Amino acid sequence: MKKFLNPSSIAFMGASNNLTTMGTVQLINLIAGGFKGKIYPIHPREEYVLGIKAFKSITELLETPDLLVMVIPTNAVIENLILAGKKKIDRVVIISAGFSEVGNVELQNRLKMVAEEFGIKIIGPNCIGLINTAVSMNFTYFPYDTKPGWVGIASHSGTYICHVFPVLKRYGLGFSSAISLGNEVNTDMVDALEYLGEDERTRVILLYIEGIRRGREFLNTAKRVSMKKPVIALYSGGTESGARSAVSHTSAMVVSDEIMNAVFKQTGILRAESLEEMFEWSFALGTQPPMRGNRIGIISLAGGPATTMADVAQRCGLCVPEFSSELQKKIRNFLPHTASARNPVDITFSMNMDAFFEDIPKLLIESDEVDGIAIYYSFGVDFMKNIIQPVKDRISAPPENFFEEFASEMRKKFVNAVKNEKKPVVASCFVSRDFFDVAYYQDKGIPFYLRPESAVKALSAIYRYYSFKRRNQSEK
Amino acid sequence: MKKFLNPSSIAFMGASNNLTTMGTVQLINLIAGGFKGKIYPIHPREEYVLGIKAFKSITELLETPDLLVMVIPTNAVIENLILAGKKKIDRVVIISAGFSEVGNVELQNRLKMVAEEFGIKIIGPNCIGLINTAVSMNFTYFPYDTKPGWVGIASHSGTYICHVFPVLKRYGLGFSSAISLGNEVNTDMVDALEYLGEDERTRVILLYIEGIRRGREFLNTAKRVSMKKPVIALYSGGTESGARSAVSHTSAMVVSDEIMNAVFKQTGILRAESLEEMFEWSFALGTQPPMRGNRIGIISLAGGPATTMADVAQRCGLCVPEFSSELQKKIRNFLPHTASARNPVDITFSMNMDAFFEDIPKLLIESDEVDGIAIYYSFGVDFMKNIIQPVKDRISAPPENFFEEFASEMRKKFVNAVKNEKKPVVASCFVSRDFFDVAYYQDKGIPFYLRPESAVKALSAIYRYYSFKRRNQSEK
Repeated sequence: MKKFLNPSSIAFMGASNNLTTMGTVQLINLIAGGFKGKIYPIHPREEYVLGIKAFKSITELLETPDLLVMVIPTNAVIENLILAGKKKIDRVVIISAGFSEVGNVELQNRLKMVAEEFGIKIIGPNCIGLINTAVSMNFTYFPYDTKPGWVGIASHSGTYICHVFPVLKRYGLGFSSAISLGNEVNTDMVDALEYLGEDERTRVILLYIEGIRRGREFLNTAKRVSMKKPVIALYSGGTESGARSAVSHTSAMVVSDEIMNAVFKQTGILRAESLEEMFEWSFALGTQPPMRGNRIGIISLAGGPATTMADVAQRCGLCVPEFSSELQKKIRNFLPHTASARNPVDITFSMNMDAFFEDIPKLLIESDEVDGIAIYYSFGVDFMKNIIQPVKDRISAPPENFFEEFASEMRKKFVNAVKNEKKPVVASCFVSRDFFDVAYYQDKGIPFYLRPESAVKALSAIYRYYSFKRRNQSEK
Repeated sequence: MKKFLNPSSIAFMGASNNLTTMGTVQLINLIAGGFKGKIYPIHPREEYVLGIKAFKSITELLETPDLLVMVIPTNAVIENLILAGKKKIDRVVIISAGFSEVGNVELQNRLKMVAEEFGIKIIGPNCIGLINTAVSMNFTYFPYDTKPGWVGIASHSGTYICHVFPVLKRYGLGFSSAISLGNEVNTDMVDALEYLGEDERTRVILLYIEGIRRGREFLNTAKRVSMKKPVIALYSGGTESGARSAVSHTSAMVVSDEIMNAVFKQTGILRAESLEEMFEWSFALGTQPPMRGNRIGIISLAGGPATTMADVAQRCGLCVPEFSSELQKKIRNFLPHTASARNPVDITFSMNMDAFFEDIPKLLIESDEVDGIAIYYSFGVDFMKNIIQPVKDRISAPPENFFEEFASEMRKKFVNAVKNEKKPVVASCFVSRDFFDVAYYQDKGIPFYLRPESAVKALSAIYRYYSFKRRNQSEK
């Protein structure tokens, strides 16, 4: 798998100089993404493909490339795989579809036999390609237009490694590596998981699973990898409808929800309910320290989100303890009389901005009454600048740049308060990264979510992961 | 309630010419929002407040305003309520907090008695204000910066009617009216629900509930209103932690989840799991025709989302039937051989764009094999323009504006195909409104979601709502 993701040269079949094929788009993305290795297009007629010297066939390549990518008609795959074998190519990504997933089991079996004969490892067929941001390699169907990062993904869906760039961007995250597995003819989820577990750039592993082909191996590998780093999965094959779709999609080996849940429980894999939830959890797990117990403190600039977060916390296995009277007293020092200090701490309307941005977060981080903190953030401070705009000549407003400077100061205090090694802190507000504060915090590694519920569920994911780890360590 | 939301004049206490009070910000929003009625600021010292002639006290008002808003210190509320009573004011919104929610039950009881003595209806105390976009009225803490719309909301949280403007914007939605209820001293969720039920501009009603004070009346009103239009609720008081927070927040009368679920079931109220889900469902329920059964067809440009949608559909009470061989044959006419026509219809990579944008949606809308349709959309067509940019001089690309024109044509075909009176159609892609297609479709009333799972859950909400309605009609 390492060679698949770190090739120093790629031969590419199925791209041309016009846009009628998928392969052309994929090769464009590889070139435009700035791939650091060599590229050898293979085309029967064109002398140059996308400006790069092309070779007429695999046979005519001047050197054996580390990787061959095929985006060619189904019925041309096997003959070319044989040529690849003769050329001593041992890593082939087959994007081409039309095998088991549409019932062509025999064709896929022949593919497997040819691969075996020549000792070729295949990713695919029926996949979308690979991403490794360390070497600027992306030959999926979409340009990788966000930053490199530390989220690793292995997926039975190609879509979920390349349509999701906007999801990554929403959280300021990036992929380390992304692997689309397709029909898994002789390389599968187990290999991908193994690789991502060892990849130093990957902090959290996401799996989109439609079925598992090697149950025992998956179990063992997942259990081992989970102890090193968090693994989050979305499994869509557990219902009858999901299963039928999965079979048509990647000829998946589906199992029931019950079995899969047992596998996840035993291996410490966290099961997410949606694709976006995987990314949400990865943000918290990849940036925050371990969580020792399930007690959370909630700090909110508003009562509704405070109540919702408290409610959701209990529903997902967390606890929102009422603070001791000592702690409540300390908190109340910073609050107006209408605020609540019981937990949730509901700041309500207060002129003491330091309370929210610094004092109370610090107090809870230092307290031994909670193990993690969820914050509802609202809109920062500089929204006031916009509010007063329409009446600015009728009001004794502070100087022009007051709010911006104040907001900047508060942001720094907030980062300084919540970035810590002791307890996870997550936050939310209803505005996305187009609100400056959100981008600022996310880029500093503070998980900011669009929904208060998501923040709490991410904390719960942290808690469950470290509970698994502790339980498993003590068993040893 | 009608008078509260349609005042021709508002007296406003607690705003001044500097920014140290909440009231000032709220009055700014009322003025800057272009409120169509008269505004009378009341201030003991200022001659003008925010450029408007002020009155020294309630007593000195020259006419009796339809509505009085108070954002004043807790201990000044009752004396001013008496003055209001003497001035024959019968509608007062009390933003001021510090009553039952912090344990001052006695003070709130006195407030209630004074109101009773003078026949005054109060919204609050401890609320954030009201919005009625028909008269450009918004005196919450944030400027209403999105368009007027048809979503009505009544909320025990002020935050959930004014911090949520970005959520509305994310879907191109707008409020008709929004009511923050606070401690509900003598006007409550039942009154708000009754009003929104009768309000012609409101197509869907959202309720954020922390507790119900008048159970019997709520039950009867909700059942009646539900038959006229969909009601969606988020209830956060059903767990111990949620309940404690709700009591501190709005001195709520919490009940267990079991009881509330029974109430929701009997009244046809749809229970959402998060605030954003309420808005997501409202989009589908407010724009789409009824759904006759639970069979859905799934059309997807990619296999992963197809499988996930099929799986989620079954989990939320929908069914994804395998199409008849006749229908599959018709669908296959439009598809490449690698695609699946069984349901989900997975288009995969196809050069026949009409299939996705027009032919297959039309086929399923006309078919009697499904009752609703969920679509995963991907990125439209003009993203190709960006992809080829880096290699545009090395490729035989179509003319400059080809993709834009093609995309525009496809968008029109898509709208023409999916806008229909027969079956609900919902869609999703991972990109938000900053992608032109999404804004375009949303503004034409086609629900577009950020998550494939959300699209399916919205269909399920439609199905459940019309099932309730049918069941209830047949009982009569």
